[in-house]
Amino acid sequence: MTDHASHGYITEKDKYLNRLKRIEGQARGVRGMVEDEKYCIDILTQISALTSALEAVAIGLLDDHLRHCVVDAARLGGDEADAKIAEATAAIARLVR
Amino acid sequence: MTDHASHGYITEKDKYLNRLKRIEGQARGVRGMVEDEKYCIDILTQISALTSALEAVAIGLLDDHLRHCVVDAARLGGDEADAKIAEATAAIARLVR
Amino acid sequence: MTDHASHGYITEKDKYLNRLKRIEGQARGVRGMVEDEKYCIDILTQISALTSALEAVAIGLLDDHLRHCVVDAARLGGDEADAKIAEATAAIARLVR
Amino acid sequence: MTDHASHGYITEKDKYLNRLKRIEGQARGVRGMVEDEKYCIDILTQISALTSALEAVAIGLLDDHLRHCVVDAARLGGDEADAKIAEATAAIARLVR
Repeated sequence: MTDHASHGYITEKDKYLNRLKRIEGQARGVRGMVEDEKYCIDILTQISALTSALEAVAIGLLDDHLRHCVVDAARLGGDEADAKIAEATAAIARLVR
Repeated sequence: MTDHASHGYITEKDKYLNRLKRIEGQARGVRGMVEDEKYCIDILTQISALTSALEAVAIGLLDDHLRHCVVDAARLGGDEADAKIAEATAAIARLVR
Repeated sequence: MTDHASHGYITEKDKYLNRLKRIEGQARGVRGMVEDEKYCIDILTQISALTSALEAVAIGLLDDHLRHCVVDAARLGGDEADAKIAEATAAIARLVR
Repeated sequence: MTDHASHGYITEKDKYLNRLKRIEGQARGVRGMVEDEKYCIDILTQISALTSALEAVAIGLLDDHLRHCVVDAARLGGDEADAKIAEATAAIARLVR
C-alpha cells in the first residue's frame, strides 16, 4: 500500500485544491498591495480574509482527519487511539492560539 | 443511570474547577481594574491572560470529549459517530474563530 | 492630579462594568457546568461566548486608549509618541495571538 | 502628490515583501501537501505556521499605520483623528476575531 493510499482521507480533495489556489492568489494580491503601497487598512482587511480562508481549510481538514484517522484508531482502541487524540488536540491547540 | 454519570467524562475534574475558580478571580480583578481606572494597557494584558486561561480549559475539555464521547461513538460507528464528529468540529470552529 | 484622573480615559465606564459583571457571571456559570458535568460541547459553547465577550471589552478599551492616551502622546510627539505606539502594538499582538 | 507618495508609510518595505514572498511559498507548499495527500496533522501544522506569519505581517503593518497615519491625524485632531482611530479599531477587531 502506498503512502498516498494510507492517507487518502481527504474528501473533496478538488474543493481544497481550489480553495488553496485561491488562497495563493490572495497572498500574491497582498504582496502586490504592499509593493504598490496601497492603504494599510485595505491590506489588513485582505490579510484578515486570507487568515479566515486558511482557518476554514484547516477546520475542514481537521474534520476529515477526525472522521477517518481518529475514528479508525478509536476502533482499534488502546494506545494508538490515545496517541491519535493527543496529536489531534495538539493540532487544535495550535489553531486556537 | 443519571445524566451525571453519562457525562462523567471529565478527567481531573478538580483541576478544572480550580482553574475556573482562578479564572473567575481574574475576571473579578479585571472589573476592579476598570472600576479603579487602572492603566488601559495593564487591563488589556490581564484580559489576554484570562482569554488564554479560558482557551487552555477549552482545549483540555475538548481533549477529554474526543477521548471519551467521540471514541465511544466511533466504536458504535455509523450515523452517531458522524454526528459526534460534526458536533466536535463545529465546537472547534467556534474556538478557532 | 491623582492617578485616577490621569487614567480617566474610559468612556462609558458603567457600560464596561456591567459587561464585566456579566462576564464574571458567565465564568461562574462555566464552573457550575463543569461541577454538574454538563455536556462538554455545551460547556465549550459557553467558553467561546465568554472569550468573545472578553475580546469585545478588550477592543472597546483599546479604542478608548488609542483615542485618548495615544492621541495625546501623538500631539506631544517624539519619543513619547513612539513609546505609546510600541506599547499599544504589543498589546494588540497579545490579543491577536 | 501621487497616491503612492501619500501612502508611503511602510517602513522596511523590502522586509515585508520578502516575508510575503515566503508566505506565498508556504501557501503553495500547503497546496502541494494536499495534492500529495500528506498526513493531515502535518498540513495543519503548516497552516498554523502560515497563519502566524500572516498575523506577524498584519501587526507590523498596523504598527506602521498607527505610527504614521494615525499620529498624523491625531496632530490635526477633530473628526479626522476620530475617524482614523475608528477605522484602526475596526481593523484590529477583524484581526482579533
